Amino acid sequence: MEKLKGSCIIGQSGGPTAVINASVLGCVEAALRSDCIGGVYGATHGITGVLDDRLCDLAREDPAELARMKYTPSAVLGSCRYKLADFMTDDTDYRRLLDVFRKYDVRYFFYAGGNDSMDTCSKISAFLAQNDYACRVIGIPKTIDNDLALTDHCPGYGSAAKYVATACMEVSLDAKVYDRGSVTVLEIMGRNTGWLTAASALACGEGLGPDLIYLPEIPFDLADFIEDVARAQGKNRDIVVAVSEGIRDKNGDYISSYFSDMSRGKDVFGHAQMGGLAVSLANFAHTKIGVKARGIEFSLLQRCAAHIASAADIEEAYTAGRAAFEAAEAGAGDKMVAFVRGEGPAYSCETTLADLADVANAEKKVPRAWINAAGNGLLQPFIDYALPLIQGETALETENGLPRFARLKRLPARDI
Amino acid sequence: MEKLKGSCIIGQSGGPTAVINASVLGCVEAALRSDCIGGVYGATHGITGVLDDRLCDLAREDPAELARMKYTPSAVLGSCRYKLADFMTDDTDYRRLLDVFRKYDVRYFFYAGGNDSMDTCSKISAFLAQNDYACRVIGIPKTIDNDLALTDHCPGYGSAAKYVATACMEVSLDAKVYDRGSVTVLEIMGRNTGWLTAASALACGEGLGPDLIYLPEIPFDLADFIEDVARAQGKNRDIVVAVSEGIRDKNGDYISSYFSDMSRGKDVFGHAQMGGLAVSLANFAHTKIGVKARGIEFSLLQRCAAHIASAADIEEAYTAGRAAFEAAEAGAGDKMVAFVRGEGPAYSCETTLADLADVANAEKKVPRAWINAAGNGLLQPFIDYALPLIQGETALETENGLPRFARLKRLPARDI
Repeated sequence: MEKLKGSCIIGQSGGPTAVINASVLGCVEAALRSDCIGGVYGATHGITGVLDDRLCDLAREDPAELARMKYTPSAVLGSCRYKLADFMTDDTDYRRLLDVFRKYDVRYFFYAGGNDSMDTCSKISAFLAQNDYACRVIGIPKTIDNDLALTDHCPGYGSAAKYVATACMEVSLDAKVYDRGSVTVLEIMGRNTGWLTAASALACGEGLGPDLIYLPEIPFDLADFIEDVARAQGKNRDIVVAVSEGIRDKNGDYISSYFSDMSRGKDVFGHAQMGGLAVSLANFAHTKIGVKARGIEFSLLQRCAAHIASAADIEEAYTAGRAAFEAAEAGAGDKMVAFVRGEGPAYSCETTLADLADVANAEKKVPRAWINAAGNGLLQPFIDYALPLIQGETALETENGLPRFARLKRLPARDI
Repeated sequence: MEKLKGSCIIGQSGGPTAVINASVLGCVEAALRSDCIGGVYGATHGITGVLDDRLCDLAREDPAELARMKYTPSAVLGSCRYKLADFMTDDTDYRRLLDVFRKYDVRYFFYAGGNDSMDTCSKISAFLAQNDYACRVIGIPKTIDNDLALTDHCPGYGSAAKYVATACMEVSLDAKVYDRGSVTVLEIMGRNTGWLTAASALACGEGLGPDLIYLPEIPFDLADFIEDVARAQGKNRDIVVAVSEGIRDKNGDYISSYFSDMSRGKDVFGHAQMGGLAVSLANFAHTKIGVKARGIEFSLLQRCAAHIASAADIEEAYTAGRAAFEAAEAGAGDKMVAFVRGEGPAYSCETTLADLADVANAEKKVPRAWINAAGNGLLQPFIDYALPLIQGETALETENGLPRFARLKRLPARDI
């Protein structure tokens, strides 16, 4: 494959994670070293920054400050939730995007995100190909939900899982301190898949893990829940319950919708807005069986707690970004970087490439065989899967006792 | 003062913190080294464990496991919220307690807790003196609320403050990622005083701190709040607001009571149960000015997040426990250990003793002079006060990527 010379854009999309910036850094550092690349641009607020011609020049950042991105949560370039139309129906955005790509001679486009972002990548790649504009589009996986198909796991998941397991241990110790009989319900992110909620099962040992775990993969029934709680309280007076925000009944209706006293909105992708479930379930248990109950929503902290990010996840996220650049430089396009776990007892992980179209509209769920028969706990195969992903501590610098996150200048690309 | 020989009991009371176990360790290690002390007992679930004769023998714990208490959150001995009657009215509990003290020849009683626990200590000390039972009662300060009188600050506060400031930085980065205009309301513990909410002000630098901070010290007005939010959004589209759970209006009514659709209970001390305020204020802002808004309650995590405890706080908590024992051994009783900050620019801190009766029913508030004129932010004197308390990182061990907390055997005292 001949070398394709030109500029590159990297963007971030969807909900941020503790390590998506590490992926951007891996890609940017590789791009800055490459002799194929002219400008190395960041898209401000994802694809909307491309459409609005709001690019920042990453080559003009202080390399030491850039390097801090490895340990900085959220999305330093800004993120977006913007759904591109089908270009066969409406190609307005695509033509605008092509104008901007031509203006900066963009021949490489990298986009870190989840399912929706891979859909965006897939559409852009198809449109550019159809218009004979040579540009290699590579998606970089990112999601605390860990629900992308064709990859063993997703960057962002390990750090969120480490947060969930650690917080679960700490909250369990606190919630069980009075010996008065109580139910503490922890609400964990995950609309359709229970990967992150399942991570609470890693918090094992001496009553430090949840007594019950409910995932969206298993239909949830309120009467069964109350029975489970009563049974668990027969063993331990104070119990902890982990629930995924997205648990649904056998008809597919969200349990959270039972309790909502106002119509919650939907986002631009049509996803229902979640939240408030833990408190509702706690109140329900209190009403039904009179037990003292408390609901705790981990909320944004579970995806942005860089201070307790997993070193394994940080390194893999960085590697995914670098692999994206190297694959594109070597000629690949229309692909997403994916992880393949090595065989054998010791954990190892390598990168490979998956077709964007195959990833875009697929969703990977927690296998039924990894969930116990009663549907309220996880089995050893899940632990074996997830435990390697939360290993190691972050090297995040501190300054005055607080994290020292990256401070970018974000100089506009037009200033060149 | 002659040496008083006998056994000692140490107990924990009230809401746990990340470092109350460090205080217990400091006291226990000193007691185990002392030639005055026979049995070193832990009261299971605080004073209720004394009344029920549920003592555990701390001398029979593995010293290496005991040492892990320094980094283990919550209360390893169990806690309670139990209010002793006035013994002039009803001395049933006191006579029971005296029986247990006589049974084990208890001559030293240490109790780690907040205002209510110091009240308990004060009453017990008075009752024992009146009954000519020689026993030295020393309180060890503990509260994330930092509201104890006659001490510069309280063990537990620094770690909770470090959590609040760190989480505030991380959530701010996340909440501001979309540039779409939003209000994120963070609800922080503190019924009557705003020390912990004020700690959000430590999260400064590049939009990483809250735009507005509301403490219980300043009467809160909903109309002013909406004006403040609108004004802050004129500067930054995405803003973060920190509120204390205990903010009240000018009549002294809790703002949370405006929104509660059910009667919340009160605890045994008559304190109203808090929570749900952040979501309510977020919904209110959304309704009034149409802005996208989210409420996040830090809940139990702010007081149990040992993984991000402050090293300064851990060491001071340990020192407070050791100082309690040393003071008692030297003859003191009816006292609480207190901290005195050294003069001069470099932070230093020494222990002293305060009279229990003076601490029991007092409450220290954030000085008005440390709050800005508008009553919605903190000034530099607060930063200067609080910043030294959050310095340094914990030495908490990890095992399999997760915290390795102390695992005590808690062998009953009667097994000796």
